[in-house]
Amino acid sequence: MMLSKNKVSEITALHQKKHRQSAGLFIVEGEKMVDELLASTWQIVDLFATADLFEKYHALDKRVQLADSHLFSKISTLKTPAGILAIAKQAANDFSFEDIKNKFTLCLDGLRDPGNLGTIIRIADWFGISTIVCSEDTVDVYNSKTIQATMGSFMRVKVVYTPLVPFLINAKAQDLPLFGAVLNGENVYNKKGVTKGIIVMGSESHGLSAHVLACIDEPITIPSKLLQLSSSAEQGQSIDSLNVAIATSVICAVFAK
Amino acid sequence: MMLSKNKVSEITALHQKKHRQSAGLFIVEGEKMVDELLASTWQIVDLFATADLFEKYHALDKRVQLADSHLFSKISTLKTPAGILAIAKQAANDFSFEDIKNKFTLCLDGLRDPGNLGTIIRIADWFGISTIVCSEDTVDVYNSKTIQATMGSFMRVKVVYTPLVPFLINAKAQDLPLFGAVLNGENVYNKKGVTKGIIVMGSESHGLSAHVLACIDEPITIPSKLLQLSSSAEQGQSIDSLNVAIATSVICAVFAK
Repeated sequence: MMLSKNKVSEITALHQKKHRQSAGLFIVEGEKMVDELLASTWQIVDLFATADLFEKYHALDKRVQLADSHLFSKISTLKTPAGILAIAKQAANDFSFEDIKNKFTLCLDGLRDPGNLGTIIRIADWFGISTIVCSEDTVDVYNSKTIQATMGSFMRVKVVYTPLVPFLINAKAQDLPLFGAVLNGENVYNKKGVTKGIIVMGSESHGLSAHVLACIDEPITIPSKLLQLSSSAEQGQSIDSLNVAIATSVICAVFAK
Repeated sequence: MMLSKNKVSEITALHQKKHRQSAGLFIVEGEKMVDELLASTWQIVDLFATADLFEKYHALDKRVQLADSHLFSKISTLKTPAGILAIAKQAANDFSFEDIKNKFTLCLDGLRDPGNLGTIIRIADWFGISTIVCSEDTVDVYNSKTIQATMGSFMRVKVVYTPLVPFLINAKAQDLPLFGAVLNGENVYNKKGVTKGIIVMGSESHGLSAHVLACIDEPITIPSKLLQLSSSAEQGQSIDSLNVAIATSVICAVFAK
């Protein structure tokens, strides 16, 4: 079977969040990620390859459809299409507190940059964090830039969207400490012996929203100039903030000690 | 004075490394960074603004030249030009061992991605690392994508290019331990009480080159799944590697404790 023109418009619609949501589908591209997807429990509904990759994928999955390179470049979300594109079913948007008790969980408040979200999913996967809870205005995990930036980690980290205030109130009732990254909180290095909790990261431009900040009981900060031993160190004077993905990795690294 | 067409080709030449190197100049764009550049000791040789920003910058520096938006979009390296662009002199490519003794210094071996280099400069600035020593095949710090990704941190962190093997041999002779990020080294969390040294990070795709690896006396690794307390943790099974900027931030965070 070959990729038809009708199908092209159906797939390009998935470049937009509203159509991804109503169809419950998303796009995964590139050999490394599609190979991993085929070996996973994620459900693939369509698979398209250009001529050079058709044989490889036909051996793996008989459903693969041949796409000529002109049509393929239309369905691809990449500037340089990789020749293999899968349409997969979105995961259910749910989780239970049973899944996150006695663990660290990341919580994202209003993140807008798809690349940052993808990088944070990759960091979560590295550190063994299995769930990321996002505010409903956080960028869509199924945005193709996010999926590509995860390098496949989206398959192993559950990302769910829910109003944060009720979530945080429930988490606190379950005895999970609520850490929030702010500019003037307690030095994160002082949080010794922490073994579980919700780590809330704010948006790139606005930090934590007021109603989320009001829920936080342990505001934390990453002090700067920590590797500068000279007494002339100007603490925290030089730069406004770390990129949210970098800040997330530093906090995870400190809690992991 | 207005931006002339002759000047346009002179400036667009600076979009390429070889012309930046022969002219010893580079481009800085955007209000935040140009404001910071004007307040710094970096030497500005030209300044161009579109009509909407001309008055602001004329008040700050009389040398500012008006550029019509068509010509400005040609000299700009940004998809969405910010209306203010400075041409600045590159810093001297030198440093002394006096500058790096008793400190942590980052060393980059063959990094290719300009955004990663910019992010690493921002991380160095945050942690108080004042010098980054790069192999000569590492991406140019004056690449506009690198400069933009630093968010201004390039003004406070010295980035120099030199052959790494002689540098590392000299550093070791100066009693600086040589740490190298590898996939199967010692757990970086075991390096307690370290207060100085060279932290060598490899390229995104190839890691450390063989001749650099041979110099390293303390190979280090960031273990994965560190925040996963369950006994079912599959150590290091899930993802190949962290992004080099994320790995750098984690190592800096661990050494900073």
